[in-house]
Amino acid sequence: MKKFIFVLLSLAAFAHAENIVIENDIELESYKNEIWTWKCNDKGCEKEALADGGRPISVEVCRVACPTSGVLWPKPIKSTISTTLVKLDPYGLSIANLEGIGGGKEASEMIQGAFELFTERIRNLDKIGSASGQGFDIYFNVKHPENFRYVQGVNESYHLTVNPGQHGRLNATICSETLLGSRHALETLGQLIVRDSFSGSILTPSSVEIFDGPSYTHRGLTLDTARNFISVPAIKRTLDAMAASKLNTFHWHITDSHSFPFESRTFPNLTKYGAYSKNKIYTEKDIQDIIRFATVRGIRIVPEFDAPAHVGEGWQWVEDAVVCLAAEPWQTYCVEPPCGQLDPTSENTYKILDGIYSDLTRLFKSDQFHMGGDEVNIKCWESVDRITRNMKKMGLEADLEGYHTLWSKFQDRVRKILSDKAGDKVKPVLWTSTLTEGDRLTKFLNSSDYIIQIWTKMDDPTIAHLVNNSFQVIFSNYDALYFDCGFGAWVGDGNNWCSPYIPWQKVYENDPRTILSKLGIAPELQHLAIGAEAALWTEQADDSSIDNRFWPRASAMGEALWSGPGSWKGAEHRLLFHRERLVERGVQADTMQPQWCLQNQGSCYL
Amino acid sequence: MKKFIFVLLSLAAFAHAENIVIENDIELESYKNEIWTWKCNDKGCEKEALADGGRPISVEVCRVACPTSGVLWPKPIKSTISTTLVKLDPYGLSIANLEGIGGGKEASEMIQGAFELFTERIRNLDKIGSASGQGFDIYFNVKHPENFRYVQGVNESYHLTVNPGQHGRLNATICSETLLGSRHALETLGQLIVRDSFSGSILTPSSVEIFDGPSYTHRGLTLDTARNFISVPAIKRTLDAMAASKLNTFHWHITDSHSFPFESRTFPNLTKYGAYSKNKIYTEKDIQDIIRFATVRGIRIVPEFDAPAHVGEGWQWVEDAVVCLAAEPWQTYCVEPPCGQLDPTSENTYKILDGIYSDLTRLFKSDQFHMGGDEVNIKCWESVDRITRNMKKMGLEADLEGYHTLWSKFQDRVRKILSDKAGDKVKPVLWTSTLTEGDRLTKFLNSSDYIIQIWTKMDDPTIAHLVNNSFQVIFSNYDALYFDCGFGAWVGDGNNWCSPYIPWQKVYENDPRTILSKLGIAPELQHLAIGAEAALWTEQADDSSIDNRFWPRASAMGEALWSGPGSWKGAEHRLLFHRERLVERGVQADTMQPQWCLQNQGSCYL
Repeated sequence: MKKFIFVLLSLAAFAHAENIVIENDIELESYKNEIWTWKCNDKGCEKEALADGGRPISVEVCRVACPTSGVLWPKPIKSTISTTLVKLDPYGLSIANLEGIGGGKEASEMIQGAFELFTERIRNLDKIGSASGQGFDIYFNVKHPENFRYVQGVNESYHLTVNPGQHGRLNATICSETLLGSRHALETLGQLIVRDSFSGSILTPSSVEIFDGPSYTHRGLTLDTARNFISVPAIKRTLDAMAASKLNTFHWHITDSHSFPFESRTFPNLTKYGAYSKNKIYTEKDIQDIIRFATVRGIRIVPEFDAPAHVGEGWQWVEDAVVCLAAEPWQTYCVEPPCGQLDPTSENTYKILDGIYSDLTRLFKSDQFHMGGDEVNIKCWESVDRITRNMKKMGLEADLEGYHTLWSKFQDRVRKILSDKAGDKVKPVLWTSTLTEGDRLTKFLNSSDYIIQIWTKMDDPTIAHLVNNSFQVIFSNYDALYFDCGFGAWVGDGNNWCSPYIPWQKVYENDPRTILSKLGIAPELQHLAIGAEAALWTEQADDSSIDNRFWPRASAMGEALWSGPGSWKGAEHRLLFHRERLVERGVQADTMQPQWCLQNQGSCYL
Repeated sequence: MKKFIFVLLSLAAFAHAENIVIENDIELESYKNEIWTWKCNDKGCEKEALADGGRPISVEVCRVACPTSGVLWPKPIKSTISTTLVKLDPYGLSIANLEGIGGGKEASEMIQGAFELFTERIRNLDKIGSASGQGFDIYFNVKHPENFRYVQGVNESYHLTVNPGQHGRLNATICSETLLGSRHALETLGQLIVRDSFSGSILTPSSVEIFDGPSYTHRGLTLDTARNFISVPAIKRTLDAMAASKLNTFHWHITDSHSFPFESRTFPNLTKYGAYSKNKIYTEKDIQDIIRFATVRGIRIVPEFDAPAHVGEGWQWVEDAVVCLAAEPWQTYCVEPPCGQLDPTSENTYKILDGIYSDLTRLFKSDQFHMGGDEVNIKCWESVDRITRNMKKMGLEADLEGYHTLWSKFQDRVRKILSDKAGDKVKPVLWTSTLTEGDRLTKFLNSSDYIIQIWTKMDDPTIAHLVNNSFQVIFSNYDALYFDCGFGAWVGDGNNWCSPYIPWQKVYENDPRTILSKLGIAPELQHLAIGAEAALWTEQADDSSIDNRFWPRASAMGEALWSGPGSWKGAEHRLLFHRERLVERGVQADTMQPQWCLQNQGSCYL
């Protein structure tokens, strides 16, 4: 008889088509005071009046299970999620086979760290100290557990299944090639666990199957910490948000003409002269701490030392190395104050760079090293007698090609220093510049030696030129991925140079391979677009504003690079939800819409 | 002999012309490790190499005393500040004549609260627990101490003098008409007290004389807490930053169509149906707390209940009051989703408004009450049979003028309800609308009854029309004072409707009387421009972003309204400093420039 009633109840549940069932649900007095409930229908989760005596379904609970809604960001390739949810015990989570994962000590620490983060976040959801509900056993099946640190192109895919297990516990099985895939699966699983605001319970779908993996291998951010200093906690927040959006590369533009916050063991004077203040320095300990923090989140850190331009403060004690330092009028010698550029004809330049590269490669141990090469100003070099004299000695003409040859000799020599320090496994990256244009590209640079990061617009013919000459490219085209655009000017008045502000919708639709197609690049060359980086130059950003600038726009890029090209329209309701997730995790992501739009899916359209 | 040496030292100090002298300075070993020092010259504070054995002067210390630099925001009318600084004991501050100030219990609590804030901030500067230095005795001389809460037009001026006093203590004397002036003087004095980053000492100029008072009487912000909820701590941060910029009016757009977060004692269902969630409500206790917090900071709170449009969520339980609620397609019935408008022909509308006004006036006790009147959509009323039938009964034509007559009848009736609740001392405020245009203005509204808040552009002829018809006006012209402009669209894609982003320079030069002059208004009518409010509509702002949106731009408006019209160029270096002050006080003000520009005054120009 009891069984019969159960069947009837189930039928009733299915009668609401897509509606949400909570197994072993609790009944609370407070439900009587609720006015609204959310129902899953073919347009998503819809708010409606709660029937007398009904169990209100919160918008979070509806969304996690409703097939026309969904909460995962980035969207997985293929997913099946049950509309039945179970109560989860946030203190009953475990890795079922930690010993069996393999990969060695560091690998084990990485996946344990990722799991601890996962449990910590679920416990943070729990506001009522509830320890009842089902436990969760997670099995990891990893083909190459020794791959725990991201290296360009490493397999990040995973297959996640959740099913009811024994003794009232849930089972999750995560199969992946590497620990990067395992971590991404944990992120996905974590996103499927929500707090029901009506009952306070932690709920999760009772069965899940997800096949997933990224469309692009290079998914990153560029952060400048020299125009304004960004504190270690703010960098960690950024890494946290990156992990939430499955980004894998933090490109750290650590120094510039404005300041030298990097603590150089070889030449401590660089920091002593160049840091904004004693508490605006990245010590070696800070950097090691940040790298550990990133590794657990599936993120590699790529350091940039921009040269021969974008240097200045910090070098004042070095004779004959930086020229045009804070030269006036600055408009003549550089793109923004203060000017500063290295003298490529001075031995001191190479002596100091040798030390800096030595410090950076020892600390960062990344498979990429960004050498900058951005915005060299020929007029600066022209204005220095010593340089023009030395060029003459070198047999170089004092014309545009002569100066570019000088620059390329500099580049060859510093690349040699880099490979002496770090070996050939470290791939250098350069920004697009006048050195990567026209004939100079193949004359001065070899496609097997460099990855090129594009900062010009998506319609720049240089992009096609690079790819047609076999260069791997990273997109940071400023018309979609420069997140400092759109604010006030900081020299003079009016709006800043790359205004207007770039909305997330534009970021979302900035697909590298689609851009290549539009530029007429053959499909067989499109694999050279390895991904993209959203860049934040910090003339007008610091701890107070970086969260707002990056998020949720960098998440939009994250999904575009993970799930492949698509329309922003299909992503809006999930990004709105994901933005709330970032805020819950302590990231001050910018506000997209009224909360009304989150509670009334599909009603905020044009 | 000792005396002779002292004289020589003083002469040496004066030999550096404008340079900074620190009395009874300490000598630290750490000075030897410093590279840079700041020197006051005719262009401001300039960074230069520190001479061997020299005492480094930090940029903060240089700026506070250097006449070509300065740290006060807003700029006082007239100030004389000595270049000699003394060490201050942050634990030796006192009001010398608390009992003698007068004004009664509440007045006394207000000035004590303001003084406690002042001391707390100075103690927060102290990072080394230093209790040595001079004490500070503050004498208040207040003509009308009973004026401690801001009411339109009350005198806010002050005269501040600081001089060496007896027993190694400093004396400050603050003369003012009201306690509002006293509070502003404390803010000014607090800004003159800085931490020297080289020694850790708290320093202040040993003698100061400042005459000061505002150019405009109404200096405010408009904050919308209905599109997205803004938490009490975020509102308090906003009030803190307002006080730092001597703003005096917080106009609280508390409800709108999207949500009803205001707890109505008379009709609690409004909040039960209309709040986004149970923890997104302003209780009476919250509001009382916010009002107390504001009063201590010299700020009055003006509540807005926008009607007859901009209503919706929260009213679902009331029969025949809100029409067009979330009507589709929304473009037909309102300016943004969700639509909602009051039925001016329904008695229930007035019954509920009576209760809301009763609750609001009892709690806020302000001398202004904002009645909204924004963006009424005639098509919405046209679409409701009941309304068109009732209009016919009232003898009104179903044309544009008929609907405006209906609206004005609504306005007359609700104004009557308001004055029944609050008496005639409460002045209603209305937004510009089609009701304030052309002949309707004088036909429907009386200039002695209403203040009009302008939200259209600075070149809108309606502005001249209002002033020529004797209406007092508050400027919130959207082309300079809508701080939500310039981000992505939130319905559809592209940038939002009032893009681009408004830079602080534009805000700074948006002087109301200058705008009136440009519109050809006679000088004798220009007093009708009582001030301005920077508005933040929160479709795309919430706790994560309001600090960034408001600050430092609202500070720019603050100085423009306090010190009168001027060029942003003369203000930039001080605003950069003031922005750091806001950050130090816990407000995440947006980033204006690289820190390099703060350390190299005058070098970031165009």
